Amino acid sequence: MSDKDDTVTTPSRRAFLQGSAAAGGALMAAGAARAQGQGPDPLITEVQDWASGLGDGVDATPYGLPIEYEDDVVRRNVEWLTADTISSINFTPIHALDGTITPQGCAFERHHSGAINMRKEDFRLMINGLVDRPLVFSYADLERFPRENHTYFLECAANTGMEWAGAQLNGAQFTHGMIHNMEYTGVSLRVLLEEAGLSAAGDLADKWVYVEGADASSNGRSIPMEKALDDVIVAFKANGEALRMEHGYPVRLVVPGWEGNMWVKWLRRIEVTDQAIESREETSKYTDTLADGTSRKWTWVMDAKSVVTSPSPQSPITHGPGPMVITGLAWSGRGAITGVDVTLDGGVTWQKARLAKPGEKMALSRFYLDIDWDGSEMLVQSRAHDETGYVQPTKAQLREVRGLNSIYHNNCIQTWHVKESGEAENVEIS
Amino acid sequence: MSDKDDTVTTPSRRAFLQGSAAAGGALMAAGAARAQGQGPDPLITEVQDWASGLGDGVDATPYGLPIEYEDDVVRRNVEWLTADTISSINFTPIHALDGTITPQGCAFERHHSGAINMRKEDFRLMINGLVDRPLVFSYADLERFPRENHTYFLECAANTGMEWAGAQLNGAQFTHGMIHNMEYTGVSLRVLLEEAGLSAAGDLADKWVYVEGADASSNGRSIPMEKALDDVIVAFKANGEALRMEHGYPVRLVVPGWEGNMWVKWLRRIEVTDQAIESREETSKYTDTLADGTSRKWTWVMDAKSVVTSPSPQSPITHGPGPMVITGLAWSGRGAITGVDVTLDGGVTWQKARLAKPGEKMALSRFYLDIDWDGSEMLVQSRAHDETGYVQPTKAQLREVRGLNSIYHNNCIQTWHVKESGEAENVEIS
Repeated sequence: MSDKDDTVTTPSRRAFLQGSAAAGGALMAAGAARAQGQGPDPLITEVQDWASGLGDGVDATPYGLPIEYEDDVVRRNVEWLTADTISSINFTPIHALDGTITPQGCAFERHHSGAINMRKEDFRLMINGLVDRPLVFSYADLERFPRENHTYFLECAANTGMEWAGAQLNGAQFTHGMIHNMEYTGVSLRVLLEEAGLSAAGDLADKWVYVEGADASSNGRSIPMEKALDDVIVAFKANGEALRMEHGYPVRLVVPGWEGNMWVKWLRRIEVTDQAIESREETSKYTDTLADGTSRKWTWVMDAKSVVTSPSPQSPITHGPGPMVITGLAWSGRGAITGVDVTLDGGVTWQKARLAKPGEKMALSRFYLDIDWDGSEMLVQSRAHDETGYVQPTKAQLREVRGLNSIYHNNCIQTWHVKESGEAENVEIS
Repeated sequence: MSDKDDTVTTPSRRAFLQGSAAAGGALMAAGAARAQGQGPDPLITEVQDWASGLGDGVDATPYGLPIEYEDDVVRRNVEWLTADTISSINFTPIHALDGTITPQGCAFERHHSGAINMRKEDFRLMINGLVDRPLVFSYADLERFPRENHTYFLECAANTGMEWAGAQLNGAQFTHGMIHNMEYTGVSLRVLLEEAGLSAAGDLADKWVYVEGADASSNGRSIPMEKALDDVIVAFKANGEALRMEHGYPVRLVVPGWEGNMWVKWLRRIEVTDQAIESREETSKYTDTLADGTSRKWTWVMDAKSVVTSPSPQSPITHGPGPMVITGLAWSGRGAITGVDVTLDGGVTWQKARLAKPGEKMALSRFYLDIDWDGSEMLVQSRAHDETGYVQPTKAQLREVRGLNSIYHNNCIQTWHVKESGEAENVEIS
């Protein structure tokens, strides 16, 4: 590992210049990694310490936590961003994760009045308003309805919101970490609405549901009936197990592809209405003020977006020139991701990244680009495409249409300036 | 919620008797759940306590844990099963989980000499033997090779092993909980072997790799080269984050569909050999002694299997007659699950369960059967089918071929006796 092997390095560069970074090219590129190793002599002969004694038993802890060496891979808040931590945000450490699943323990959380502690036995969900028979469901009731499983991303409308004003927070966790992606289990909202009966509502085309949580904020939001009857889930498990307290235990709403604040936690009531409620959370908040002072509202869908998670400010390159992996996440609230392009020169030339799996509707996609880094500085960006043909815009394109007054729905292309040292910085390029 | 509503209950029974438990039938069946509710008056008018104050802030804990009310949903060992906890087993609480992903914190673990504590910086992986150039990889080296993402189940060969002797452990966690299912990220073993160069090995058809871990047991196992070059992964992430210490931090082998003991943790060495090593773990252990005293060996693949996780002894029915969900898991080491049948009468009649998603190769499938329980006792079983056409056998069929001397590879159909009280028991039926 310790010797530079030019005969191996050479073909890998050739493969890189040909742009064949996946499959065959990767095998080539891999050659040079060997030349970069910091390992000891290839023939390890000594007995390693771990083999000379016993380790921990299975009784060490009933519910496991990450090993001590990973204690920087945690959700984090930004102290100056909010007045207090009760109405605040914890960001997912996306710079340090790989794959697509977000463990609940480090998944983005946002509360408007703090995370509340509710026993399953005390949970009640009322469905009322324009229904044939108002109902109240206990948790045990919900468990008796047919269940569904789906993996979906949740993204806060404010994710990347600081970037409207220019490059701000220095790290993918803070610019793009208001997101998580979990496998949810629950009951289709359609099933519960039909249980209450919708004939009293008449023509469903112009009807709404108003959803609210049991916390003090209630976080009430109006959802058009068409969406409510489409793919919304009343969920009680995430990644196989019960929702964590901070994710809405015991029951939250899952509104695939739509902004996270509509995924009401500690769900307590769903009212069928003949108009939108125009609540605080959909008028003074979660609307987008344009350059002329008017506001866009009902901007529910999260448009296609992507970000390079490594290299990034919190995940610098720690080795010299040679083969390396550029990776990131892409998602779209309108359906499946169909492709991701990556540029190393700030958008002059683009390469097609490799998706780890075919895109799934309203779920995170992991992308990889295997390159042979020449050691010079890079302006790294990624650009997502979704199944509707939508292409992720530049910051300039987005500002041209929306101005600079917005907080929410910033899905622009993100730029990391990767320096010769391997360190990376959040920058804005014109 | 509190009134029995026969007009709603009646159609649900009709739907059930017609066997249309999915989709449309389920909507009908759901009707009766309403009649079983234990909720308060449908019109909740009082202010609930949670709405009268603030909850916890986002600074409550940097890495989250399950809420206190779920503290029975943990991995557990069985004290009398092994002499000590260093060489023992923790079972996944599958009776309480749903969906397919297993969180690392409650996922099955098995150690032969305890879980060892290794820093990433101290990790070394040697590839030696019949290779063109022996190599030692550091963790940082591995990160520079092209990565893959796959969701696979790991099942211990001994899972359900106690059942050879008859119905034993009373709970799905203990009969079938030596399993987990995670999304792995890592490097294809093929890529690393080709990096070391395989021309020295000559004809690969009769070659093997011998894999071992850095713990005292080393847990060495021989794997045919054909499998090693097919789908084996050198993995460093599970469900997005670093492997937990007890799951092999920082690097373990993933051997899709094959018995769990080959998924070597704390991976330290891969030797290309011209024959199987015939290690302790593949001769005196992990072989299957037949009725005539001879042993099957190289029984690597985990055959198709399934189990009802609820209702089950640890997950009894807690309500009276009416609609309910029967659910469980199915998997096959030979490919994707194509279907699961469920019987309520000990195998006299079978119904097709609903798969939550189309089966994926060597990954857990979740199945559901929505029934209208009449309150009488049931003998509940499930039966898996995989894409090769294989059908999960009965215990009698398995014993007829393998006798009673085996410990490993018991993939027989499991029976739960669900009583009128809703309680369930592990039973054996002839």
